[in-house]
Amino acid sequence: MEKIKLGIIGVGNMGTCHIETILEGKTTEIAITAVADRRESRREWARSALGKDVVIFEEGEELIKSGLCDSVLIVVPHYQHPELSIMALQHGLNVLCEKPAGVYTKQVREMNDVAKASDKVFAIMFNQRTNPAFQKLHELVQGGTLGQLKRVSWIVTDWYRTQAYYDSGSWRATWKGEGGGVLLNQCPHNLDLLQWICGLPCKVQAFCHEGKWHDIEVEDDVTAYLEFPNGATGTFITSTGDAPGTNRLEITMEYGKLVYENDVVTLHRLEQSEREFCKTAKGGFDKPKCEVTTVDTTGEYPQHAGVMNAFAGRILHGTALIAEGVEGIRGLTLSNAMHLSSWLGHPVTLPVDENLFLSELQKRCSHSREKQEVEVVFDTKGTY
Amino acid sequence: MEKIKLGIIGVGNMGTCHIETILEGKTTEIAITAVADRRESRREWARSALGKDVVIFEEGEELIKSGLCDSVLIVVPHYQHPELSIMALQHGLNVLCEKPAGVYTKQVREMNDVAKASDKVFAIMFNQRTNPAFQKLHELVQGGTLGQLKRVSWIVTDWYRTQAYYDSGSWRATWKGEGGGVLLNQCPHNLDLLQWICGLPCKVQAFCHEGKWHDIEVEDDVTAYLEFPNGATGTFITSTGDAPGTNRLEITMEYGKLVYENDVVTLHRLEQSEREFCKTAKGGFDKPKCEVTTVDTTGEYPQHAGVMNAFAGRILHGTALIAEGVEGIRGLTLSNAMHLSSWLGHPVTLPVDENLFLSELQKRCSHSREKQEVEVVFDTKGTY
Repeated sequence: MEKIKLGIIGVGNMGTCHIETILEGKTTEIAITAVADRRESRREWARSALGKDVVIFEEGEELIKSGLCDSVLIVVPHYQHPELSIMALQHGLNVLCEKPAGVYTKQVREMNDVAKASDKVFAIMFNQRTNPAFQKLHELVQGGTLGQLKRVSWIVTDWYRTQAYYDSGSWRATWKGEGGGVLLNQCPHNLDLLQWICGLPCKVQAFCHEGKWHDIEVEDDVTAYLEFPNGATGTFITSTGDAPGTNRLEITMEYGKLVYENDVVTLHRLEQSEREFCKTAKGGFDKPKCEVTTVDTTGEYPQHAGVMNAFAGRILHGTALIAEGVEGIRGLTLSNAMHLSSWLGHPVTLPVDENLFLSELQKRCSHSREKQEVEVVFDTKGTY
Repeated sequence: MEKIKLGIIGVGNMGTCHIETILEGKTTEIAITAVADRRESRREWARSALGKDVVIFEEGEELIKSGLCDSVLIVVPHYQHPELSIMALQHGLNVLCEKPAGVYTKQVREMNDVAKASDKVFAIMFNQRTNPAFQKLHELVQGGTLGQLKRVSWIVTDWYRTQAYYDSGSWRATWKGEGGGVLLNQCPHNLDLLQWICGLPCKVQAFCHEGKWHDIEVEDDVTAYLEFPNGATGTFITSTGDAPGTNRLEITMEYGKLVYENDVVTLHRLEQSEREFCKTAKGGFDKPKCEVTTVDTTGEYPQHAGVMNAFAGRILHGTALIAEGVEGIRGLTLSNAMHLSSWLGHPVTLPVDENLFLSELQKRCSHSREKQEVEVVFDTKGTY
């Protein structure tokens, strides 16, 4: 069987997880040919895990230029995502980049321009798009049979992290190293799914609380209000300090309501359009008739293996990706808007002023605290 | 059996409902001795429903001064609540006032001052406080065993109303006649319960949408962000345009989480304080252990009859009220803060500037639309 020759840049928590997925035999069209990490301890781990046929580099740049790979998987701190993706694309490699696409949209826009000008495959690790529940929500909302979006409320506070987590990497949870907190690290999935299912809002006002639950300088608690181009509104609530957290997404449409909770999707389907009913009903307290069903969401949830297999499939057979790399900017736009509106203390319209966002971010980076490196790799199973 | 001699001022939707409750024999210590309404058709209904022993007036003032009552139940448009309550108290009558306490806190503060200076009983119709589920939530949150409040999210969008509802009264859903929309008419219960269970926030930013789902000039869709004195945050989402709506209250505490939905209260109780766990856990992805139980909320939910019986009980036996009248200002403070922050486009701190609120309200009243009177009384069963 033909395989892509994959180089993996970064062997931290998630890089390790991806290597293990590949070693478990879940990605039959992928062969790891090279790995890069700046930490000797991680290179050593990779050597022992992957054997002598896989070449180990210190720098991603060396791996990209080595000629050993036709494709790379980029699993490094967020700031370097666009930089390494651009370099790899320009060296004729296919790129699968971890989320988020980057830290600020200006940088990601450059990456997207390079990707659009290239004939290489550019994908992003939105593994939660492989969840049949979210696929069904995407179909139901975008499919049009439920009419217009009216409201979306997502409480996604089940990203609990301990102080030990934040102490585990010198780049983690700093403006300079990571560029943000829960919005940049944990929520890129949710922000991508939100825009994938409901579209992008046009106005955002967030209230971000920095170091509220942890000794960190970035946000670990966010409440955001959203307005969509058609007038629909939304809320997005997240935190790494709530235990037990909640993951409940409610979407109200013209023809009813969808609720995702505990990985079950419930559809409340109205017999007729609420908009029509409202205007024609005779009684003041009448309500449109409604049928409640559980949406069938059986099917495989292949997670990262699914994204990697689709990446290899596009390269080898031209089949569909799980998420086009250029779509990464959409969720990031939402995250940048949340940060910026919170920093400015007033709502912002989308797309945000990229230069203003960058200068506000840089202000924070210039005071970013120096954290001591603690070398730990956590088992990430079930945390993404 | 001794009975209070109750005069009922206002025989619209809710006044009719209260008279029916009393006629059903649910309030054994209450005798209706007089009724007032400005509409001949409602006086006629009262005459035929109550018989010739009950005296019917056109004006509340006549009823108050008649000497026929020792107590009054005030069920008129909101603006008149403080005015009539003050008059009744000053004439030595006990007062049970419908919610909201009034339209603006300045007016309600005057009413509270009169009530405090009087030796008469002053109560407010917060019938939802008689719901065993909310009583349990109040006990659990205020009791202290779950530690500090961290977050509250209430989606209460099950106040669906048709256009016919809004067309049913000339005062309804106008700035001049009602002083607001869903916040003033439907949500006083929820805002009272929110402050009763969680305490009052100190900062509010709401996004009120006026005439979004109905042909009305006041708000029928609200999303509010709240901050509490201890740093806890919250959201409150309401609408009269969502079908089917949701009524889900989630409260995150230091020792776990409470969820109220479908009239069931679920307690997620942690083995230890999350705050302590966060700082001492060794793993990055560890989570405190949690036990999930359904809270026992069996017991009577006597609704308005419960409030009226407690009112009579206080007068006759000195027993406890369901809600002291002077507490009505608390939920109204929250509602005024939501309106004001939305009108100004920036967060407000509590207590709000009462004069600023009033002048902003008066601006809106001065352009208030003239609605044609449509005489309809809807059956309100199950709508409060």
